[in-house]
Amino acid sequence: VGLRDEILEQPDAVRRLLAGSRSTIERIAAAANRRRPTFVLIAARGTSDHAALYAQYVFGIRNSLVVALATPSALTLFGAHPALDGALVLGISQSGRSPDIVAVLEEGRRQGALTVAVTNDGASPLAGAADEVVELHAGVERATAATKTYTSQLFAVGLMSAALEGGDHDRGASAELADVGGWLEQALTVEPQAERLAGQDYELSQCVVLGRGYDYATAREWALKLQELAHVMALPFSAADFEHGPLALLEPGFRVLAVAPSGRSLDAQLPLLRRLQVEHAASLVVVSDSAAARGLGQGLNLPSGIAEWLTPLVSIVPGQLFAYHLTRAKGLDPDRPRTISKVTETR
Amino acid sequence: VGLRDEILEQPDAVRRLLAGSRSTIERIAAAANRRRPTFVLIAARGTSDHAALYAQYVFGIRNSLVVALATPSALTLFGAHPALDGALVLGISQSGRSPDIVAVLEEGRRQGALTVAVTNDGASPLAGAADEVVELHAGVERATAATKTYTSQLFAVGLMSAALEGGDHDRGASAELADVGGWLEQALTVEPQAERLAGQDYELSQCVVLGRGYDYATAREWALKLQELAHVMALPFSAADFEHGPLALLEPGFRVLAVAPSGRSLDAQLPLLRRLQVEHAASLVVVSDSAAARGLGQGLNLPSGIAEWLTPLVSIVPGQLFAYHLTRAKGLDPDRPRTISKVTETR
Repeated sequence: VGLRDEILEQPDAVRRLLAGSRSTIERIAAAANRRRPTFVLIAARGTSDHAALYAQYVFGIRNSLVVALATPSALTLFGAHPALDGALVLGISQSGRSPDIVAVLEEGRRQGALTVAVTNDGASPLAGAADEVVELHAGVERATAATKTYTSQLFAVGLMSAALEGGDHDRGASAELADVGGWLEQALTVEPQAERLAGQDYELSQCVVLGRGYDYATAREWALKLQELAHVMALPFSAADFEHGPLALLEPGFRVLAVAPSGRSLDAQLPLLRRLQVEHAASLVVVSDSAAARGLGQGLNLPSGIAEWLTPLVSIVPGQLFAYHLTRAKGLDPDRPRTISKVTETR
Repeated sequence: VGLRDEILEQPDAVRRLLAGSRSTIERIAAAANRRRPTFVLIAARGTSDHAALYAQYVFGIRNSLVVALATPSALTLFGAHPALDGALVLGISQSGRSPDIVAVLEEGRRQGALTVAVTNDGASPLAGAADEVVELHAGVERATAATKTYTSQLFAVGLMSAALEGGDHDRGASAELADVGGWLEQALTVEPQAERLAGQDYELSQCVVLGRGYDYATAREWALKLQELAHVMALPFSAADFEHGPLALLEPGFRVLAVAPSGRSLDAQLPLLRRLQVEHAASLVVVSDSAAARGLGQGLNLPSGIAEWLTPLVSIVPGQLFAYHLTRAKGLDPDRPRTISKVTETR
């Protein structure tokens, strides 16, 4: 079992999570709706931090909750005790074993906040530190680079959002969540296209990766896969932040990857993506509407009809497949990235 | 007047701010201490977003306040109305003219939150949208790349922290703030060293930039200067996040810049910085204790004795000077970066 198998397992993994988490999610929602959190604090690192970024948009847009991303070193190195009594405190970690993430949950619990762990290991220290545990049931993830646990983490965030007040049950969130498995299956059919483009791109050594709104998280996660698997110096930016300075990096032939599925973030990114073409950047764009995306560069296609708020669950798939095949095209081993290990314990 | 003049102006700029902002800061502190904000929300982009990152650590560690960084597109593209009624809402922007940042302040005001603008233009839309305005008095900033307004923004954050409850007046915060001008003057004496190292480094095209704790903001800001001025693909990371994956980029000769002044963040970064040397990375490290830093790579020296929480005001100076001289060593014009303009209006 290797990285590619785990990428292909993603439809099953989210279906298992949907089936196995109903009572936990209901309990969390009941507790949260009773306490009415003033804000959400999320502690996470690496790939899990990108699930936290996604949660920032989902809870902000759909549940009217401000989400703060924790700075764990404020607690572990500087002894801070940020006021958390009215908060919902989430820790997201595949292994559940990084001491700094556990420390944030412990502080929340000490102050009486509602604490929730999202982890693939229900017996981990993170799970032990939380009031409630959303276990991902993604199965053991053997590859160092996280893929199926990432989409499962996003799915857990989506389940929580749908169950919380303001989460729009009535507008069909549950039905949309049930569709994710099917969308993931369709998205996986992009593999031959991703393999072909990656094969042409075997010299890719640096690029920026752009996204906006919900899919800013996707840009960050795609960049991380390219860094850790294919040793690409991939700089992720929100498309808006990119215009505030880093745009100066642009020169003819400059490589840009972008996540631009149809919807409000595509409209907001279009002027920039068109400008990149005018300046002769070489773009590769994840799109769900090949007509709207015409003239933006080479395309990696998503299935159409995905609910906008759930797009990041699906739009990372072409990115994972591209990173996997690029790694192989470069003669590297996607199952054994150099220098890093599966569980990283930072303090 | 060019970029270098504005770098050299920084000691005067913070002294002007200290002298000119007393009554505003006192009014903000009185209002905040009366309302006891449940959390802080900060809207900012580009360089100003790095001042927001600094504020995340300062308010978190010294004032026990959780700081959330706003995702303006949630409001402007998706029509979100995140709950802000108990919050302190800050907008940080040199020009005060980016519509998405203004939108966050307007939403805060509509919900009755205490809103504060930190800007170099007291007549800007951002200033008009806020209850209180901390005007930076940094003087017109002509260079596209922000330098003196960045350190002035950090200083404004420091002033607010010292005046808010829990801000440790008694433990000498005011005296420490008064020392910043002198520390900046000392830091500027590193210029010949920065110029020499930049001259040797004229082929630098990609690197990572590491920092942790308060100086994570410095790593981000240094990377942005290198991107926009010297066209370096500079990837910033918190040293802890770097270990969760991107460490795989490491190979012999890999370029690492690090911000590692003495204090708790240096202790936490030392094992990683030593490992980088063992793996034959080529490091350039901003340090305040050359003995502690021995064996970590080439050093850029800071004055010693800087209060740890105010270090980022000073530790960016060698980074600015290095970026300026690297730009010149590459034959580029630091006063006219390509492609970008001084005021960026994102929606």
